[in-house]
Amino acid sequence: MKSYKIMTREELQALLDELKKGFVDAKGKGLSLNMARGKPAATQLNMSMGLLDAFNSRVDPVTPSGIDTRNYGELIGIPEAQRLMADMMGAPYENVFVFGNASLPIMYDTISRSYTFGVNGSTPWCKLPKVKFLCPVPGYDRHFAITELFGIEMINIPMDENGPDMKLVEEYVKKDDAVKGIWCVPKYSNPAGITYSDDVVRAFASLKPAAEDFRIYWDNAYAVHDLYDEGDELLDIIGECEKAGNPDMVFEFCSTSKISFSGAGIAAMASSKKNLEWVKKTMAIQTIGYDKMNQYRHVLYFKNLDGIKSHMRKHADIMRPKFEAVLDCFDKELEGLEDLVAYTRPRGGYFISFNAIPGTAKKIVAMCKEAGVTLTGAGATFPYGKDPEDSNIRIAPSFPDVDEMRMAAEIFVLCVKIASLEKLLEEK
Amino acid sequence: MKSYKIMTREELQALLDELKKGFVDAKGKGLSLNMARGKPAATQLNMSMGLLDAFNSRVDPVTPSGIDTRNYGELIGIPEAQRLMADMMGAPYENVFVFGNASLPIMYDTISRSYTFGVNGSTPWCKLPKVKFLCPVPGYDRHFAITELFGIEMINIPMDENGPDMKLVEEYVKKDDAVKGIWCVPKYSNPAGITYSDDVVRAFASLKPAAEDFRIYWDNAYAVHDLYDEGDELLDIIGECEKAGNPDMVFEFCSTSKISFSGAGIAAMASSKKNLEWVKKTMAIQTIGYDKMNQYRHVLYFKNLDGIKSHMRKHADIMRPKFEAVLDCFDKELEGLEDLVAYTRPRGGYFISFNAIPGTAKKIVAMCKEAGVTLTGAGATFPYGKDPEDSNIRIAPSFPDVDEMRMAAEIFVLCVKIASLEKLLEEK
Repeated sequence: MKSYKIMTREELQALLDELKKGFVDAKGKGLSLNMARGKPAATQLNMSMGLLDAFNSRVDPVTPSGIDTRNYGELIGIPEAQRLMADMMGAPYENVFVFGNASLPIMYDTISRSYTFGVNGSTPWCKLPKVKFLCPVPGYDRHFAITELFGIEMINIPMDENGPDMKLVEEYVKKDDAVKGIWCVPKYSNPAGITYSDDVVRAFASLKPAAEDFRIYWDNAYAVHDLYDEGDELLDIIGECEKAGNPDMVFEFCSTSKISFSGAGIAAMASSKKNLEWVKKTMAIQTIGYDKMNQYRHVLYFKNLDGIKSHMRKHADIMRPKFEAVLDCFDKELEGLEDLVAYTRPRGGYFISFNAIPGTAKKIVAMCKEAGVTLTGAGATFPYGKDPEDSNIRIAPSFPDVDEMRMAAEIFVLCVKIASLEKLLEEK
Repeated sequence: MKSYKIMTREELQALLDELKKGFVDAKGKGLSLNMARGKPAATQLNMSMGLLDAFNSRVDPVTPSGIDTRNYGELIGIPEAQRLMADMMGAPYENVFVFGNASLPIMYDTISRSYTFGVNGSTPWCKLPKVKFLCPVPGYDRHFAITELFGIEMINIPMDENGPDMKLVEEYVKKDDAVKGIWCVPKYSNPAGITYSDDVVRAFASLKPAAEDFRIYWDNAYAVHDLYDEGDELLDIIGECEKAGNPDMVFEFCSTSKISFSGAGIAAMASSKKNLEWVKKTMAIQTIGYDKMNQYRHVLYFKNLDGIKSHMRKHADIMRPKFEAVLDCFDKELEGLEDLVAYTRPRGGYFISFNAIPGTAKKIVAMCKEAGVTLTGAGATFPYGKDPEDSNIRIAPSFPDVDEMRMAAEIFVLCVKIASLEKLLEEK
């Protein structure tokens, strides 16, 4: 097919008319499909039901390390869980605290703590006239929601296939001591699905921040979430920061939300001992300890990193066909739009990122909704929900099954085409 | 035996010399007993192991209300757990949010939220020159630790067997708009074990605070923790506040930490819908939801309030003999000190409160430690860890077994006597 770009007005209009009929048919099907959130499907969750049996009433609730998981205490988690989560992040286990059921509250608490009490003795952010965060875009809406809530000014940082634009990051961090942090999803990023290159990780580790309380907020959410046997490799940021003489510059987060149960996993934070000691000071007032029984349940079931990896291969077998259904449909159906739209082809994670013709993303999402396909709101992948180009759309191909995924992708493609044609006609 | 009060110097000295020999013997025994924290014994935790089997891989993880407990979402908890916790607190279920594994972090978050974001639109506390809290004493050290961490000035409020001195509370709350809250453990209070009378609860509900963001922080930690068949009855503060035209004045907290597992229970907050809506605004940024599988585990096991109550009778059978061992020892052994020391005789909860001769509490705790009996630090039951009288000691008779409890009580009594005699001799 001819590229839309070189079609005449008449050709565009004829195609649009035809596609609009297809859209009316699609709406008639009364679909209800959800690709809005990175939500595991029931089939994935089913694979983890063995967790419930791994810790039953006949199992000794006291860990090999001698902790009664049922009672109070052990603020930083049971050592067995520290080891499991450390191995998953590739961090030394003494640098790891294990928390409750999700990593989002740990990130929130880390920001909240800095806001109220400062970082390792620095001025609390609530006492400063201005605090800024760098936000690689497109990024994770829930990160941006936290910083927005605390009144932190967010600055967009463009990304390419290797990670954030490090020249720009270096410049901001070096020149402005109001810049206190940067949000990163370094592996299978949300939503682009890219993994930061070794050079990018090393550039992060070598930052020379003007602010002593500048930290990299490294959300390693998809550390073991490969779709293919050969996964992306991410350099260990904690080790790199140590090597570069910046041992305290990073807080790393991870969880089993997309390994075991999304509502009932375990989560962890890795950082320098100095940072963790600081965290512990207020954490000891906030809680007596997180749910050690659930920590132990995970240890009993997965045993070690190999156990997690073999479990994740089962996830991949469920997820891969869904990603491929979407990408196959895009490859086939977006003919004529190749040089006008773009999409990522991730080898892991939970998302595909789609860049539509600028000025059409909101429209595409609205049309999809009309035809029964719910997508993440356009703009959600940018701070303040504002995509300056109105172009990026996050696609989450996890929750529906493969057939539904295919149908949803077809509707999506149809809406992309219609919105693109209308835009092109508008501009003729 | 003659009262110490009317003994001659010589009599006191003779008694002291004799008791000191006993203390040397006691130290020789090399005991190691812990009565420091309200920690359930393993025998109590054993009774809840059935929880682990109640939710196994053959149980449908989808609740009757249609929620897949394994996946993301349901910020305020599953309705089945809301109902269970509401019944436990005696509050309407639509006024209840269910959270994670403990109530302490909910209380911390409630203070932290008010500090950063205010209460229902009021000025955030971090923007105010001074914030004050009223603290009925003796009270719970972890409450005081939270308010101290946030730089909140704490004001001691004396308590009697009916609750806090409400005249004083009314006065402070009415005259000073910097007074933003009061910490309460209204039933089987920590550490006195008293339950607020109906008049006290009604006086709370009728407060006329100068500050619109004044709230009662009602930690109903021991709602169903009776030691005897006939338990104390506590009036429902939420209902009373509504009746008094102060529907938004209370945050109530509770958990199953001392019902199921201390590290792996579920916790809840009850308040007005308006307050809860406010909480939800920031909570939705903080988390996608708490551990619904553990919430459902509790629902599957306990089923309803009757299930909890019959379970708590088993706890009472374990706890009661420990309380009685301590009190029997006190009744018998503190002869001669009746009019110089005092202790509570709680009908529930986790603590006995002991008032030694002013100026001796620290010494008693230190001596007990020397003889292998760890108590809560003297002063811990007061804000800033400062008991102005150096008199109150909290005794937690839950963790050791009955025989150990008896031994510990005997050592405690011995230390009380020695410290009292030394004090009296000093003053002669």
